Amino acid sequence: MFNKLDHIGIVTRDLEKLKTLYRTVLEMEPAHEEVREALGVKAALYPIGETALEYVEPISEKAPLKNFLETRGEGIHHLCFLVDDIESALRTLTERGVELIDTEPRMGANNRRIAFLHPRSMGGVLVELAQEAELTG
Amino acid sequence: MFNKLDHIGIVTRDLEKLKTLYRTVLEMEPAHEEVREALGVKAALYPIGETALEYVEPISEKAPLKNFLETRGEGIHHLCFLVDDIESALRTLTERGVELIDTEPRMGANNRRIAFLHPRSMGGVLVELAQEAELTG
Repeated sequence: MFNKLDHIGIVTRDLEKLKTLYRTVLEMEPAHEEVREALGVKAALYPIGETALEYVEPISEKAPLKNFLETRGEGIHHLCFLVDDIESALRTLTERGVELIDTEPRMGANNRRIAFLHPRSMGGVLVELAQEAELTG
Repeated sequence: MFNKLDHIGIVTRDLEKLKTLYRTVLEMEPAHEEVREALGVKAALYPIGETALEYVEPISEKAPLKNFLETRGEGIHHLCFLVDDIESALRTLTERGVELIDTEPRMGANNRRIAFLHPRSMGGVLVELAQEAELTG
């Protein structure tokens, strides 16, 4: 059901400092950077092999990730796996007793449809599912 | 320097329960299972794409992971990246200011040489480096 690990979401206090760390230590620049106003975060993506590390810094006091940072500190927040058909995956997971955070897919970055599963149902790991946007035109 | 994400290390309270979860929800069986007496843990590996999720349950009261489980709860413990030359990688990382947990590589599972970097130096993420054993004979 899970095709591949798309990215690992990591919460950081200071994205600029993190970028400096990657530049000086690993000689890597982010493949992509963006501000996600709706979530109150800025993000930088570092591909490694077929997966990627996505670092996210909350930049708004209201950002849901602000609370994570204050209670857990910096570190890994979630794993995102690609699925072929997100509706079908959510239906199957529900039938098999998995607790969903998003009962319906919602729109994520790059027009992907995404949904989060509850860590209670996934061995303590927050799991995001994502279905790539279909190419049209 | 980091070639690919070899595995994600995840601490679980109950490996049998986790295996049941994978069997019933994801229809997956572990590709590999083992008991690591020296570390006081048992482990099960689930490959997904080119990486893998490695679930580890502390089975000894003295297991270093027991403390992690008690203070942080179940969840992601570390990321392991493959490198071509672990001595060279550790030397370069030290020169660039990264704090090492293992200043010299030590022997891990499957005759790999491994070393951990301090999360303080890696944006809050515990990072393991591993160099594959050379094939001989």
